[in-house]
Amino acid sequence: MENRTNIIDCTIRDGGLVNNWDFSVKFVQDLYDGLSEAGVEYMEIGYKNSAKLLNAKEPNHWRFLDDQFLKEEVITEKKFTKLSALVDIGRVDPNDILPREQSVLDMIRIACYIREVDKGLELVQMFHDLGYETSLNIMALSSVPEQQLIEAFEMVKESPVDVVYIVDSFGSLSPTDIEHQVKKFKAMLPNKQLGIHTHNNMQLAFANTLTAMRNGVTFLDSSVYGMGRAAGNCHTELLVTYIQKASYEMKPVLGVIEKHMLEMRQKWEWGYIIPYMISGALNEHPRVAMAYRDSDDRDKYVDFYDKVTSPEASLAPVSK
Amino acid sequence: MENRTNIIDCTIRDGGLVNNWDFSVKFVQDLYDGLSEAGVEYMEIGYKNSAKLLNAKEPNHWRFLDDQFLKEEVITEKKFTKLSALVDIGRVDPNDILPREQSVLDMIRIACYIREVDKGLELVQMFHDLGYETSLNIMALSSVPEQQLIEAFEMVKESPVDVVYIVDSFGSLSPTDIEHQVKKFKAMLPNKQLGIHTHNNMQLAFANTLTAMRNGVTFLDSSVYGMGRAAGNCHTELLVTYIQKASYEMKPVLGVIEKHMLEMRQKWEWGYIIPYMISGALNEHPRVAMAYRDSDDRDKYVDFYDKVTSPEASLAPVSK
Repeated sequence: MENRTNIIDCTIRDGGLVNNWDFSVKFVQDLYDGLSEAGVEYMEIGYKNSAKLLNAKEPNHWRFLDDQFLKEEVITEKKFTKLSALVDIGRVDPNDILPREQSVLDMIRIACYIREVDKGLELVQMFHDLGYETSLNIMALSSVPEQQLIEAFEMVKESPVDVVYIVDSFGSLSPTDIEHQVKKFKAMLPNKQLGIHTHNNMQLAFANTLTAMRNGVTFLDSSVYGMGRAAGNCHTELLVTYIQKASYEMKPVLGVIEKHMLEMRQKWEWGYIIPYMISGALNEHPRVAMAYRDSDDRDKYVDFYDKVTSPEASLAPVSK
Repeated sequence: MENRTNIIDCTIRDGGLVNNWDFSVKFVQDLYDGLSEAGVEYMEIGYKNSAKLLNAKEPNHWRFLDDQFLKEEVITEKKFTKLSALVDIGRVDPNDILPREQSVLDMIRIACYIREVDKGLELVQMFHDLGYETSLNIMALSSVPEQQLIEAFEMVKESPVDVVYIVDSFGSLSPTDIEHQVKKFKAMLPNKQLGIHTHNNMQLAFANTLTAMRNGVTFLDSSVYGMGRAAGNCHTELLVTYIQKASYEMKPVLGVIEKHMLEMRQKWEWGYIIPYMISGALNEHPRVAMAYRDSDDRDKYVDFYDKVTSPEASLAPVSK
């Protein structure tokens, strides 16, 4: 049977949440070339949100993707790997999206919380009509009540969306949880392809991704050397190494790690770090842990654990 | 149903392969106290091999455990956690083993390759007769031909050994492989408890351990902060956090990490490191990768990959 797996490398997009998208054009080009040689099907080159809507004062190439800049300065020649961009509900201006044939982008992915699925599907319809492949990425899935999911899926079924994502935003799910979610999604959305986006808080991102794949998920998100917010994501180099697909090659990804990622990891922090492990285990957003890592108390794990598990604990930042 | 899980923390024994057992008595005591408070059932406090048989010139407390030293200088008071020691075939002098009632040790584990199972079982019988709990840890399982396993198990069945271990020495097995192995072991050894010892080369140590547990394995090896040879082991802090057993507490393990392990990780290297990932993916012993990490070429991943995958590649050390 043909292997229908697609890897979507999110190094720029999710990794940008670590370093405020402080990536050089050269790095993005090397990454694109490396992923193309490695046979990775998609690269998410950033967010296509609106600088205006976000009142951004500084330019930020990969947070506010611009088609002209991408085409003229970054990806002057498309290779094997397709390009995707992520948008957030309320932060994207649909007028910024060109018809696909005028863009280097191939896919637009819409991130939304469960209560915004209707708005997400409006964007799906719009971008689909412009010729893009689309996905709907429902975040914070580990906290969504079953009934809300059923209602949302009634709408999703009728939409032209190509891929529906299971997103473990908090890195709190285990392979058993993932298998349960995938089976539920498959039963409720038999006509859609499924995707998986994991976080590595409990060192389960790769195992969760494999579990999803074995249960029929065909779009697998990852990042080179795991670079992504807080604990980071499933590692791209593990997927191209482990998955049996003739087109996948480990070596070009190793080249990117050797040339760029070691130095970046020295400068910026992501990966298996105890406060992120704790927030994953508690099924909480990593923002409290991220604030802690930015404070002088960064390595006081027992203190952190006491704070987040005390009866007064809230999701407000720890430091004043 | 009562949770029958036992965690065996191998920080001193397997972690000693990283730093030549350069652990202070104070650290070993803090670890013992922390594990006891965390509800960890066993601590493997080192190897009980013979300095004489190994022609060792330097003393090494945790490599050549001495009952008197342990009792008088280290564990002056036994707490919740039981103590185990590992021995290797041909390196242990059975005359060094006191009857259990004269020792602080509760369990002796015997590591062997498949061709040495007969010798391993002789030691099992001897230590069992001295009153110890025993386990047989068959190493390099990923390379053992099925027929050899079947023959070995005919002998194992008849022995008094308490626990038989599945050891993923090379960190090359996936959860699917583990499930397959566990089912095979269970079918062939219905009267034995099973154990699992994993390595984290592909970030699968924790997931593999959970898979084993869900399939009926009751002895789970781990190390605090993963400290073990090369890529290290399943992390103790993940097991006590994730496994539902009322006696397990995360906090005392966090205390050990905060107080000791961060500094140790600065000084010594273990964990997810690309050459170890590659040797895991190739199902090879990490010794070539370990030699590479000790050389000036330590971060030349592409070069390392080319060397170990070239037709001339052998398991001989890379550097001259």
